[in-house]
Amino acid sequence: MQFSERIKGVKGSAIRELFKVLGNPAIISFGGGNPAKECFPKEWAAETAKQLIAEKGDVLLQYGPTEGYMPLRKAYLEKVLPPLGITDATIDNVITMTGSMQGLDLLAKVMINPGSTVLVEEPTFLGAIQIFKLAQANIVSVPMHEDGVHADELEQIVKETRPVMFYTIPTFQNPTGAVMNVEARKMTARLAAEYDMLVIEDDPYASLRYSGEVMPLIKTFDTSDNVILLTSYSKTVSPGLRVACCCGNAELVRKMVIAKQGSDTHSPNLNQALVAEFINQGRMPAHLDFINSVYSKSLNIMLDAMGKYFPEWAKYERPEGGLFVWVTLPEGMDASEIYKRSVAEKLVAYVPGAPFYTKPGIGDNTFRLNFSAEPEERIIEGIHRLGDLLKEIGG
Amino acid sequence: MQFSERIKGVKGSAIRELFKVLGNPAIISFGGGNPAKECFPKEWAAETAKQLIAEKGDVLLQYGPTEGYMPLRKAYLEKVLPPLGITDATIDNVITMTGSMQGLDLLAKVMINPGSTVLVEEPTFLGAIQIFKLAQANIVSVPMHEDGVHADELEQIVKETRPVMFYTIPTFQNPTGAVMNVEARKMTARLAAEYDMLVIEDDPYASLRYSGEVMPLIKTFDTSDNVILLTSYSKTVSPGLRVACCCGNAELVRKMVIAKQGSDTHSPNLNQALVAEFINQGRMPAHLDFINSVYSKSLNIMLDAMGKYFPEWAKYERPEGGLFVWVTLPEGMDASEIYKRSVAEKLVAYVPGAPFYTKPGIGDNTFRLNFSAEPEERIIEGIHRLGDLLKEIGG
Repeated sequence: MQFSERIKGVKGSAIRELFKVLGNPAIISFGGGNPAKECFPKEWAAETAKQLIAEKGDVLLQYGPTEGYMPLRKAYLEKVLPPLGITDATIDNVITMTGSMQGLDLLAKVMINPGSTVLVEEPTFLGAIQIFKLAQANIVSVPMHEDGVHADELEQIVKETRPVMFYTIPTFQNPTGAVMNVEARKMTARLAAEYDMLVIEDDPYASLRYSGEVMPLIKTFDTSDNVILLTSYSKTVSPGLRVACCCGNAELVRKMVIAKQGSDTHSPNLNQALVAEFINQGRMPAHLDFINSVYSKSLNIMLDAMGKYFPEWAKYERPEGGLFVWVTLPEGMDASEIYKRSVAEKLVAYVPGAPFYTKPGIGDNTFRLNFSAEPEERIIEGIHRLGDLLKEIGG
Repeated sequence: MQFSERIKGVKGSAIRELFKVLGNPAIISFGGGNPAKECFPKEWAAETAKQLIAEKGDVLLQYGPTEGYMPLRKAYLEKVLPPLGITDATIDNVITMTGSMQGLDLLAKVMINPGSTVLVEEPTFLGAIQIFKLAQANIVSVPMHEDGVHADELEQIVKETRPVMFYTIPTFQNPTGAVMNVEARKMTARLAAEYDMLVIEDDPYASLRYSGEVMPLIKTFDTSDNVILLTSYSKTVSPGLRVACCCGNAELVRKMVIAKQGSDTHSPNLNQALVAEFINQGRMPAHLDFINSVYSKSLNIMLDAMGKYFPEWAKYERPEGGLFVWVTLPEGMDASEIYKRSVAEKLVAYVPGAPFYTKPGIGDNTFRLNFSAEPEERIIEGIHRLGDLLKEIGG
């Protein structure tokens, strides 16, 4: 069988492959980005799914519009966007998606020709790299710092490479946990206007803030309607439901709808209705308070354990939110090699950093720890074991 | 904003656009392919969704594997495929999808380069044409007859054009309702082997049989593992859930999994669990008996009304199953033009035939009628009005 050129260049997602290992309950997993199971609104979802199907089953079990289930589009437009500072959107700016990943796939279909230049943060979400590679884009990158990308570096590289789009996770970035500074946010919006560059503002983690100050969305500085916001409900409600919303340029959204017709026709209705109900019943603020208290505690436990058990040459920042702690080992150490021993000898999983980089050979000394999926005692135990392994290997 | 080359060539789906018109309840719709709402297992789904979330919410609301929810993959492998004559498949041959449309999208990503030749039936499902156009394929076609494509024509065109894939809906084809004869099924499997051609056997309607003899799947004649079967649960259980399964070459399926990682990560778990339960509880045979009794009655009502109210120059076959009656008007008549008057003056919708053809200028005198979405009296009334319009226009 002859496969397409585009698929030849793409390997399976390192995280998705990890998923198979995680079937073994003996493994303490700091891989993935799985929400804690106690953070799912399980009883509410069970009862509400039943009610929704009983009352609106004729609509929910039927084909739905590609643009999305109208009550969810409206809830997003009227209740979610205004508190974020987006007050001038209309329903034509909003579609729903089968998870934010689909947003990237649709935008790749609609915007990228083979060879088109796409700008990403370095490191960035490996799923985005996979999608842009599948679209045969020319991927260029701007380096991440403690406070995200820097405005001057961003301006320089946009000037030089003229990308059709810039993909960014400005708040609690995956994998670094960094928050983009305000100057770079404003610069991003300015460059979007100046160079007619699409900005994909992927924002799945911003609601998971445990300390520090709320940052304005890049979209709030958008004067050219070139910034498209992706809002995932995977980290805040449930990833298994696969529901996300987006707000962007109406013409672009219309093209995304056409691409979505040829992707999955429409996102499943029941799932969208559940999220719409969750928003419309006003459950989100209390729910976020709850999950943020859980995750902030887990983060502190992990950081305390890292302080205690990790060798001092393993460097990391203390994130103000999100789901990840990003670790940098001394140059020359290989986190992928260590990973093999970590899983085999210590029964501890994490995500090696290399797949988050656009090119091979950089970031081999980095790895990502997730703190939301394991209970307290297993976080401490896992970090203890991993710290022991690092010390055994030596820096 | 500069859009990609691939999206420039693709118009929105005629059926999806229709969907918006159908919001008006005064319109009698023979467009779409919507199941009747009384055919949804609504009470069962309400109760079962509640139970599933209550009992397995930790798994169902969490991220799931890209390959699919294991109980559904197993149910498909062990309970669905063997009665269809597919007994040698393993779990590696099976993935689940967010509707069969996603199967086409994944196969396009994995198999098609710009300019790759893809063979389709003429006319065929317009969503498939849209996907292959978006993939910038060179689309060639083999003509449909009353008994589907003909083996000799198929062989001839495969020899001449050497397509990488042949997309077929062999049973109760969309839009024609035709059933491919056994000789052509065998020839399709033979050509798949001889020319290393992938055959996509899209089979959403075969369970909806109201008369005549069950036909063997092309996949049962497959000696080269080049036939991939797509099984949708949209017409038999619920389209709004967006659940489909597929069985094909393990290496191809593995590539589809990689493409799916970059499409929607995985299909929603709850939806897959509902379909798995439906199958595992043994509900399908009785449910199919029920919906087939409903649809066969609707089909007969429509055909009787067409016999009574349509001018005799409007030609159509009597399908043995599926959801559609395909009408051919005399050459020179334009079903798209008539459609405008039909909606505006008669409040009756159907799907004009032109979008089911791969090239402009052919099939303008055809249209598709769906009989599953409207109750008895509205079918008669709608056909009466449409017949009156046709007679007014004159053939």
